[in-house]
Amino acid sequence: MARLADQTKDFPQWYLDVIDQAGLAENADVRGCIVFKPYGYALWENIQRELDRRIKLQGVENAYFPLFIPESVLQKEKDHIEGFAPECAVVTHGGGKELAEKLYVRPTSETIIYSTFAKWVHSYRDLPLKINQWANIVRWEMRTRPFLRTLEFLWQEGHTCHATKEEADTMAQAILQMYKDFDRDFLAIPVQTGLKPEHEKFAGALYTLSTEALARDGKAIQAGTSHNLGQGFSEAYDVSFLDEAGKAARPWMTSWGVSTRLIGTLIVVHGDEKGLRLPPAIAPIQVVIVPIYKTDDERKTVLAAAEKIRSSLGGIRVKLDDRDEKTPGFKFNEWEVKGVPIRIELGPKDLEKNQVTLVRRDNFEKSAMPITECTEKKIASLLDDVQAGLLAAAEKFVKENTHETDDFKTFEKLIDGDGGFVWAPWDGTLKSAEAIKEKTKATIRLLGDAKKAKGKKDFLSGGEAKEWALFAKAY
Amino acid sequence: MARLADQTKDFPQWYLDVIDQAGLAENADVRGCIVFKPYGYALWENIQRELDRRIKLQGVENAYFPLFIPESVLQKEKDHIEGFAPECAVVTHGGGKELAEKLYVRPTSETIIYSTFAKWVHSYRDLPLKINQWANIVRWEMRTRPFLRTLEFLWQEGHTCHATKEEADTMAQAILQMYKDFDRDFLAIPVQTGLKPEHEKFAGALYTLSTEALARDGKAIQAGTSHNLGQGFSEAYDVSFLDEAGKAARPWMTSWGVSTRLIGTLIVVHGDEKGLRLPPAIAPIQVVIVPIYKTDDERKTVLAAAEKIRSSLGGIRVKLDDRDEKTPGFKFNEWEVKGVPIRIELGPKDLEKNQVTLVRRDNFEKSAMPITECTEKKIASLLDDVQAGLLAAAEKFVKENTHETDDFKTFEKLIDGDGGFVWAPWDGTLKSAEAIKEKTKATIRLLGDAKKAKGKKDFLSGGEAKEWALFAKAY
Repeated sequence: MARLADQTKDFPQWYLDVIDQAGLAENADVRGCIVFKPYGYALWENIQRELDRRIKLQGVENAYFPLFIPESVLQKEKDHIEGFAPECAVVTHGGGKELAEKLYVRPTSETIIYSTFAKWVHSYRDLPLKINQWANIVRWEMRTRPFLRTLEFLWQEGHTCHATKEEADTMAQAILQMYKDFDRDFLAIPVQTGLKPEHEKFAGALYTLSTEALARDGKAIQAGTSHNLGQGFSEAYDVSFLDEAGKAARPWMTSWGVSTRLIGTLIVVHGDEKGLRLPPAIAPIQVVIVPIYKTDDERKTVLAAAEKIRSSLGGIRVKLDDRDEKTPGFKFNEWEVKGVPIRIELGPKDLEKNQVTLVRRDNFEKSAMPITECTEKKIASLLDDVQAGLLAAAEKFVKENTHETDDFKTFEKLIDGDGGFVWAPWDGTLKSAEAIKEKTKATIRLLGDAKKAKGKKDFLSGGEAKEWALFAKAY
Repeated sequence: MARLADQTKDFPQWYLDVIDQAGLAENADVRGCIVFKPYGYALWENIQRELDRRIKLQGVENAYFPLFIPESVLQKEKDHIEGFAPECAVVTHGGGKELAEKLYVRPTSETIIYSTFAKWVHSYRDLPLKINQWANIVRWEMRTRPFLRTLEFLWQEGHTCHATKEEADTMAQAILQMYKDFDRDFLAIPVQTGLKPEHEKFAGALYTLSTEALARDGKAIQAGTSHNLGQGFSEAYDVSFLDEAGKAARPWMTSWGVSTRLIGTLIVVHGDEKGLRLPPAIAPIQVVIVPIYKTDDERKTVLAAAEKIRSSLGGIRVKLDDRDEKTPGFKFNEWEVKGVPIRIELGPKDLEKNQVTLVRRDNFEKSAMPITECTEKKIASLLDDVQAGLLAAAEKFVKENTHETDDFKTFEKLIDGDGGFVWAPWDGTLKSAEAIKEKTKATIRLLGDAKKAKGKKDFLSGGEAKEWALFAKAY
């Protein structure tokens, strides 16, 4: 097996090496697209299963809308089409003939879904309407990177209609919280949450909320977004309802989504010099048992004992790696790159002592455990420890790499150094945001408590600060 | 609520009415595509969950391949592109520019998957390779019908590589059996299985196996296919491996799939004059409780008792329809159209007698049950009865509508009458098959035991019969 690039020296190459060597994905025969290999797709399946459960707990139902959006439907919301049309793939021919109307491959589905909602929503009794779909999306990205930015990706997109702005606000916030909890509980990823500045909001939205994680190279990564769309789409797609007083009104909408980018986020947040480190909750294989033997007799005894342990671990996702053609060292390395949370080593010496050797992937702690104690309960508890360990490490990293400053030189040094999050006072103008981006490549990830900016000056322009903003270089 | 068209008089309209009134789907703003509404999509989710489990039991892993297939990749297998290119949607523009190479929206994924398999398969140790994907598919159909034939549909497609023809034969047959069992156990649909005649096989395949159900209008409906692709795609996509002796060899491939057409199949096999009849295994709602009350006092007592029953039914998917604005009669009708297997009615008179009234959707049998007996176990057992009842009814229908003949007049009378399956001796020529299709619209669904044709004459041409063929008009 090839070695990974050094994470501290060449993070982008390390990232590609991990994806390759962990068997997560590979470039496809079509530009900017990837093939999700079984191990990588299993991560997405696990995300889907758990997030789908949480989405349904929000009273949301799944549905499915078409891949293609006719040009006439797409162009009804002006800001939206301006934002998205340039990055669309366009179908001009079908069934061997040129089409009378071009079809856009969905870059997101507000337009096609809201033109349908117009038929579903008539009365206040039809609200709130809460729909989600799991789908593939195409955006014509020029610079792509597996999972983080690809021409086609997989995601869920929620779309809801509400009678009032307040209800839409509450929904957008509830989803933001759902994403934050999911990231934390399931992916062991701590995220910052908050409002995007006006110039970074979703095309056509009233405002956008987002979750931002911090990669180990000090860059921010937007992991999910939740938009209050206001009434603009209602207007454009003529969605209306009769309220309790019998008066016609426009619903307020929200939309929100997370994508296969979460897999990229997992890699850049938890990965280390040995490869992937998977939180047990999402790991397709939670425990790998590597038997160690030389002679045929040893093989027989060790494999029998290993199989006994495997079958005793009940609901835990265990793999017994009984390949004869690979050495234990090769296997250790492979399962480390693949990020399996716990390795159980079992050889003749362990058997003599009636023990196994346990190795945690999060911190490489090695310990001996009597075979009799190697039960589902004990191993599940150890998996909980690994999950908590990864979260704690990620939280520590965010804490150590989050700073505050109102001095530009300090800001520049931080951003050019280890990167990370920097809170700073901003005058609220696009001009300042763009100047900062030009000088440092840092962008505003989200806005914090504006009170903290009170009395402060914008750290670049020197103008009166209006916002307390979280800056970072970003994916 | 509007009434359904008469199933016996206008089956096609009845079909559309059921889809509309049961809230399964509706036509989208893009030609030939449908919107899967939550109740319809829930059917697909349940199919996915159960079938995915069974697919994994076959040692198959899920993965995901791109939506777009470059023209150069698609055209490598000659028969395949001839079969599929005319029904493709083609992307010619992306990111605002005309593309140097056209991209085809996948009409099926053999080509893009096997060009990837060429990178995955090197040694006999890499075989068998068994991959499945859940994906959307586009075929430029001119005449579309919701679920049965749409421009975009959802499916799973399995793709495997094997060292020998025998192994590929075994795989194709194992999947056919898996589909048959799934149709029977889960959907309560009995299917005929067998080989497609040469002229009906998949473009580029060695042979095609299929499952064929029988709709209540006497038409056959192909529910799933399983192909042994031979070595043609291995050749075209240059997939090869070193066998145990170190010699280069071409793998044998299979591919197989079922789609959202299964939902259409469910409707046409089980639906009756009142609408959908869902087998409990797939029903999103297995039991609906309809409370009956007039006064506020009654409402309070009845709803409290109904809620108590609901919460006592544990793992059963129960809906308590507590809408005040709808009458019990309206609700009965709505849940009947939606095909909910069991209805529990509960009114003041029932409460007086400490009972509920149960109505089975499969046969409208009505019975009283003491509330104390209304337990998860009892209701689950009743659901099993409904599942078995639907299967038995469907089996009876197939049996009554399957005939044998070697006389053309009789054949014509059967096909023009109630339709159904007709076994008949066929001379094995495309000419005869086409002549029969022209005269009667019946096509060969699959081939039976050729021995049964021995000594018989083709029922149209009078030539020597080579095959015992199952004919039917078909969807």
